[in-house]
Amino acid sequence: MHIEDRGYQFADGVYEVCEVRAGHLIDESLHMQRLVRSLGELRIPLPMSLRALSVVLHQVVRRNGIEYGIVYLQITRGVARRDHAFPPVGTPPAIVVTANRLDPAKIDKRAAEGIAVITLPENRWPRVDIKSIALLPNVLAKQQAREQGANEAWYVATDGTITEGSSSNAWIITSDNQVITHAAEHGILRGVTRTVLLEALKARHLTLVERPFSLAEALKAREAFITSASQIVIPVVRIDGQPIGDGRPGPIAAALRGDFYRFAEES
Amino acid sequence: MHIEDRGYQFADGVYEVCEVRAGHLIDESLHMQRLVRSLGELRIPLPMSLRALSVVLHQVVRRNGIEYGIVYLQITRGVARRDHAFPPVGTPPAIVVTANRLDPAKIDKRAAEGIAVITLPENRWPRVDIKSIALLPNVLAKQQAREQGANEAWYVATDGTITEGSSSNAWIITSDNQVITHAAEHGILRGVTRTVLLEALKARHLTLVERPFSLAEALKAREAFITSASQIVIPVVRIDGQPIGDGRPGPIAAALRGDFYRFAEES
Repeated sequence: MHIEDRGYQFADGVYEVCEVRAGHLIDESLHMQRLVRSLGELRIPLPMSLRALSVVLHQVVRRNGIEYGIVYLQITRGVARRDHAFPPVGTPPAIVVTANRLDPAKIDKRAAEGIAVITLPENRWPRVDIKSIALLPNVLAKQQAREQGANEAWYVATDGTITEGSSSNAWIITSDNQVITHAAEHGILRGVTRTVLLEALKARHLTLVERPFSLAEALKAREAFITSASQIVIPVVRIDGQPIGDGRPGPIAAALRGDFYRFAEES
Repeated sequence: MHIEDRGYQFADGVYEVCEVRAGHLIDESLHMQRLVRSLGELRIPLPMSLRALSVVLHQVVRRNGIEYGIVYLQITRGVARRDHAFPPVGTPPAIVVTANRLDPAKIDKRAAEGIAVITLPENRWPRVDIKSIALLPNVLAKQQAREQGANEAWYVATDGTITEGSSSNAWIITSDNQVITHAAEHGILRGVTRTVLLEALKARHLTLVERPFSLAEALKAREAFITSASQIVIPVVRIDGQPIGDGRPGPIAAALRGDFYRFAEES
């Protein structure tokens, strides 16, 4: 990349991560829909048609011989002499697409064991609905989780409710089997896996409540889990060191993980 | 740069901008001191000794033949396969140094005319004391200023006080000649030009008060100005469309601009 790429000097860009499974992209159209929204919010033009972009994504996956893994797409406002304000209209956006292998056995093992989560004060800017590359707060949150033997950090807003994880959406299941997750209007990123999972919930006739939940509620929950495009559903078995339910992955999270691909789209 | 540079994918890095004047760096040691602090807060190692870094900065300025302009230095956490958490210990940080010519006549003209400023709700993360490259909120603020015919945007905190500008520190001078600027403990970046200007204030026996000031105070101020390393002191003549003082650059700001280099260090 050019050293004056605005993504490098200003975090002035957006990204998407699609899961690759048996060489196919999972939920490509939902990811592209969100990409278009993120770009629109930042007024960065789409560098090529979605049809052409789809060809690029599939080519990068195929040429790298990725069967299971992820394809990563990043679009920035392009290369220009450093100046905070936007460069002249017509400056072409810069695009990067990479694909990486993931070991599905490793992720399945993580799902079978469940993960620990820590909580941290929400400290990100309000526009986390834009999937931007300004991820430094998320980096520090994730690192803090790792150093405390956990796999994810959940952000707690000033009112004591949990917004989302540093790279995932957060869910709990109450003792009366209500599935609760933060509404996707603002304060969180509208996760693609989150969106697709709503269909899986419906099919199992589970009651979904889209509202913020508190840390206290999470600690009393029957189950908790996270969703993300690269790991789908991962049960949470500890929050801030305290066991959730019986401290082992719950049956509903496991079932939803198993259901997921029935509702996902392959391309 | 490598496409998996963490600066490009996560805004995981810091930067400094030094003014270059007659081929010399202005206040290099203060900039390097702040760089070391920013890197320390993010636990990114310094990629070389400060002495070696100084040689690099001066070489880039000299080889690009920059008499008046800026030298830009960026250090990121290096190149690693994409993962939010820090890469393995020992991953070398990545460094970029560039130098650009600026037209001093253009900046002097701006100082002679004064600039317009708009105000915006503070929406950045709390760690703005770290000079990180996660600048997307600042980009959007500066762009909004430009589109409203202004040159800078001042952030207003929820308590109604002004923190700083999107790329500068904010100052006002009251009717009884008190010079007021936000304290540099938290909520703002400790500007190098700001620090040096405190000496100039002392020499003129001006009363400095380091405290937050409100937008209402700013609108009633005798003078207002901004400070930054690339523009030093620039008078503010309008805030949100309302004239400050008599709507023309004030004498104290102009005097401080003239004083500055007596207190700055050249290297």
